[in-house]
Amino acid sequence: MNPHLYAVILAGGSGTRFWPLSRHLYPKQLLRIIGEETLIQQTVRRVLRCAPASRVLISTNPAQADSIRFQLGEWKDELRDNFVIEPEARNTAPAIALAATELVRRDPEAIMLVLPADHIVKDNRRFQVAVLLGTELAAEGHLVTFGIRPVRPETGYGYIQPNMRTRLAKRRSLTGYPVARFVEKPDAAKAARYLKAGNYYWNSGIFVWRASTILDEIAKHQPSLSRAMQKIGTFMSSGVADGRVAGAYRRLTPVSIDQGVMERSSRAAMIPVDFTWSDVGNWSSLEEVAPRDRSGNVITGKVVDLDSRNSIVYADQRLVATVGLADMVVVDTPDATLVCPKARSQDVKKVVEILKQQGAPERLEHRTVFRPWGSYTVLEEGPGFKVKRVTVNPGGRLSLQLHHQRSEHWVVIAGTARVTCGRRVFDLRVGQSTGIPRKTPHRLENPGTKPLHVIEVQNGPYLGEDDIVRFQDDYGRQVRSKE
Amino acid sequence: MNPHLYAVILAGGSGTRFWPLSRHLYPKQLLRIIGEETLIQQTVRRVLRCAPASRVLISTNPAQADSIRFQLGEWKDELRDNFVIEPEARNTAPAIALAATELVRRDPEAIMLVLPADHIVKDNRRFQVAVLLGTELAAEGHLVTFGIRPVRPETGYGYIQPNMRTRLAKRRSLTGYPVARFVEKPDAAKAARYLKAGNYYWNSGIFVWRASTILDEIAKHQPSLSRAMQKIGTFMSSGVADGRVAGAYRRLTPVSIDQGVMERSSRAAMIPVDFTWSDVGNWSSLEEVAPRDRSGNVITGKVVDLDSRNSIVYADQRLVATVGLADMVVVDTPDATLVCPKARSQDVKKVVEILKQQGAPERLEHRTVFRPWGSYTVLEEGPGFKVKRVTVNPGGRLSLQLHHQRSEHWVVIAGTARVTCGRRVFDLRVGQSTGIPRKTPHRLENPGTKPLHVIEVQNGPYLGEDDIVRFQDDYGRQVRSKE
Repeated sequence: MNPHLYAVILAGGSGTRFWPLSRHLYPKQLLRIIGEETLIQQTVRRVLRCAPASRVLISTNPAQADSIRFQLGEWKDELRDNFVIEPEARNTAPAIALAATELVRRDPEAIMLVLPADHIVKDNRRFQVAVLLGTELAAEGHLVTFGIRPVRPETGYGYIQPNMRTRLAKRRSLTGYPVARFVEKPDAAKAARYLKAGNYYWNSGIFVWRASTILDEIAKHQPSLSRAMQKIGTFMSSGVADGRVAGAYRRLTPVSIDQGVMERSSRAAMIPVDFTWSDVGNWSSLEEVAPRDRSGNVITGKVVDLDSRNSIVYADQRLVATVGLADMVVVDTPDATLVCPKARSQDVKKVVEILKQQGAPERLEHRTVFRPWGSYTVLEEGPGFKVKRVTVNPGGRLSLQLHHQRSEHWVVIAGTARVTCGRRVFDLRVGQSTGIPRKTPHRLENPGTKPLHVIEVQNGPYLGEDDIVRFQDDYGRQVRSKE
Repeated sequence: MNPHLYAVILAGGSGTRFWPLSRHLYPKQLLRIIGEETLIQQTVRRVLRCAPASRVLISTNPAQADSIRFQLGEWKDELRDNFVIEPEARNTAPAIALAATELVRRDPEAIMLVLPADHIVKDNRRFQVAVLLGTELAAEGHLVTFGIRPVRPETGYGYIQPNMRTRLAKRRSLTGYPVARFVEKPDAAKAARYLKAGNYYWNSGIFVWRASTILDEIAKHQPSLSRAMQKIGTFMSSGVADGRVAGAYRRLTPVSIDQGVMERSSRAAMIPVDFTWSDVGNWSSLEEVAPRDRSGNVITGKVVDLDSRNSIVYADQRLVATVGLADMVVVDTPDATLVCPKARSQDVKKVVEILKQQGAPERLEHRTVFRPWGSYTVLEEGPGFKVKRVTVNPGGRLSLQLHHQRSEHWVVIAGTARVTCGRRVFDLRVGQSTGIPRKTPHRLENPGTKPLHVIEVQNGPYLGEDDIVRFQDDYGRQVRSKE
């Protein structure tokens, strides 16, 4: 593989269309939708065939970075400096410009493979061959995109028509062509025509190009983005405080790389690829890639089914019983359940919109929330109390903190806890417990080599996460945020 | 009302057809299916128009008695001695024979109104008038049953054809007739014919008769049941230990009062009644009695719906989102969810059968379990730990007990706890906690006037409810059950 090839994984999804399994703060890329690994883990493993982990960059936002770091723990050391954090989502063009700016700083010869974190590819070997050919074309100055041969008259994707009279390059069974034109999402009639015509391809959103080429093309077609990015690049390389980078980034106009650059560029090329691909854009698309039983169902988890067919039933932890369903989607999570005909899967985003208007917590996050030190799960809350299971990773520790309004009790159920409570520091083992009075500085730490699990019972008139004064934090979070 | 009128509420349902809201140990009568009260509470309130609480008997089994007592707390003192406990379910004839035996012992003139605990009646005033007329007929020696005018060609009920040429008695708009014949559950064609004929009525399972009359008729048509019951009556009135009553009862052959007595008796009479009635025999029958929205849906709880129609959506505690459902049933509980077309509601019992074969806890009971002293809810369990919220009623206390395999921690989240731990007795208030080492006798008690809520964290290699040695118990449960 090319020693200048870097992979840039776009990991900033919004968590709307796979609700309730995905959440605003826990989008699709973090889900184990098919197979043993989450989509972002599968994506990293896929690109590792093309570049080592040290050359894999993760483009994401501050709200999702902790969860992603947690899932990519296997590659923690190599990825440590490879997170490109967008201060706020501005669609793909700014995200790609930011990553490209970072890459040319590291390696002026850098070639970027850009791909979403939450797509499914069924054949990583074929993917690798496509990247090889893409890299060749990128090295020659093309903006390469992968085209997927349509298998149905899909109205949800953009299409690309290549100019197949000109072959730019060839490798094994794959050929690269110049792009004749990009076509917007078609209506049903047009989609059927494209499918029949045979020379229209789905735009996969996977790209290969030189970092310097895409920056040139951004300068040409999105000059204001380019200027802003140069300023941000200067801030970044001069080690200036985050605040100015963030401020400049927030002022960018959101635009996609497709509309903003690809559709305007004369350097666009396309490789019709031969791997099975899905963007798993909603629950019903799961059946394109997941194994189905004899009745056509995709069933996951603790499900008792009688006579259902062509349905998708996902049980996260609890028991789900289904009888005689046809073409339905049922998704059950610890705090929310969705029931919807497959044909209405796209309307899940309308449900999420309603939940947003209601300020419903079920839109935002799961009952389990990931933190840099581990995670916590709210088991129950009621008037004056909240019960959590807190997991602290080996070597992890929470900030030194206090709460004005609540006392806490900790009971260790697995591992060893090192507790700071006021001036005392002591260890608790399984079955031991301690109480933390309110207004008392305290800290929970895992000094061991196995995960620490603690049941925390909170008591007090106000139990919001924002009743916290941090005195010291290992993860760069703001200290003394209130007092 | 007649001073010899007693109500006998049959409260021994099996909890199959309203799963997952009903459970084997928490059947339909205990559910708040429509309105603010549970079905058994509504039933008690209904019969209180006919007889005082001191003359209301509850026929049930040991597994359900605690939950029923808890729900009937409002009438606790009057009902204290009015529970007729069947050692094991033997269908309605033995249950009614047992209650009748108890009643003639109390009052040889007793007239029994017998009714299931889990039916819905929409007009208690009309019900009262029907009971008045029924009581008159019963006093004359009839076995009176209430007939419901069919509103659809129902194949799930038995039918009764009265002899309408003979009027036995009349009150307001109601008339009692002799029964011409009982008809078994018909097929669809017959059901349509009965509906059209107009002189067939649904058998409501509500009866009025003299206790002595039904015992005479049982002697005539079920002689072996009658003989066994006389023996049981002797045991009961001589105050002999429960064991012999239970043993004799368990040997009875299960038979329904309809098949065993009513269909064979020449004394059967029927009153066509004019109140709205439903046995709410399955989820789809809910729409006969529950208010429907403009789209025909019956929606309960935290539900976000888009465009559904004629569907039943029940959300117990968590969020349920439904999109575009038609004629579906969705029932969500803390540990199990059901999704089923209304037309397949009857097949819920097949699901429960599968769960029984699997030994699934979701068939047996809810995450919340009722005890004589209060209740507990399992919040989470995992390897080596279990977290419960324990509620102790004012004045209630658990048994003095110890566990061989687990330690426990208690954190008070509401009320005051009186704790016995070894030789120490002390009180804990909100936010205070204590640990109970394993093998240490201990007791939790609520000395206050408000409910006590405690979070209990258990640690140990084995956390089954059967790891308990009871030394003393306020509720007559076996002590020193193991050691």
